[in-house]
Amino acid sequence: MSTATYTVAGMTCGHCVASVTEEVTALPGVTDVQVELDSGQLIVTGDSAQDTDAVRGAVEDAGYLLLPTD
Amino acid sequence: MSTATYTVAGMTCGHCVASVTEEVTALPGVTDVQVELDSGQLIVTGDSAQDTDAVRGAVEDAGYLLLPTD
Repeated sequence: MSTATYTVAGMTCGHCVASVTEEVTALPGVTDVQVELDSGQLIVTGDSAQDTDAVRGAVEDAGYLLLPTD
Repeated sequence: MSTATYTVAGMTCGHCVASVTEEVTALPGVTDVQVELDSGQLIVTGDSAQDTDAVRGAVEDAGYLLLPTD
């Protein structure tokens, strides 16, 4: 179990937050997802939390962009 | 059958457009609804198109604001 923090671009309202939350939550090995609209912060908890490719895929499926991390 | 044009404030994305469209379409006597995100323009067609109170209620149920017309 681990936690990773990402940044999502393009979310403008609560519907966007709900879409991202739904897609990332559906990933195998994800147990908790927190999304903050204003900052775009996405906090993923679970065995797959560090799997950036999987998280990026879910975010893109929702229609948003995962910003690269440093 | 008639058509009326309104302006909706607060929509920021396609989800918002979908929510407004869904709520207004569900009104009795409404046969067609067109919503444009950028302008906030809401075009309602049907026997209830001129019923501003009903349209306002539907827009507010969706979580947005119907702007007053001149």
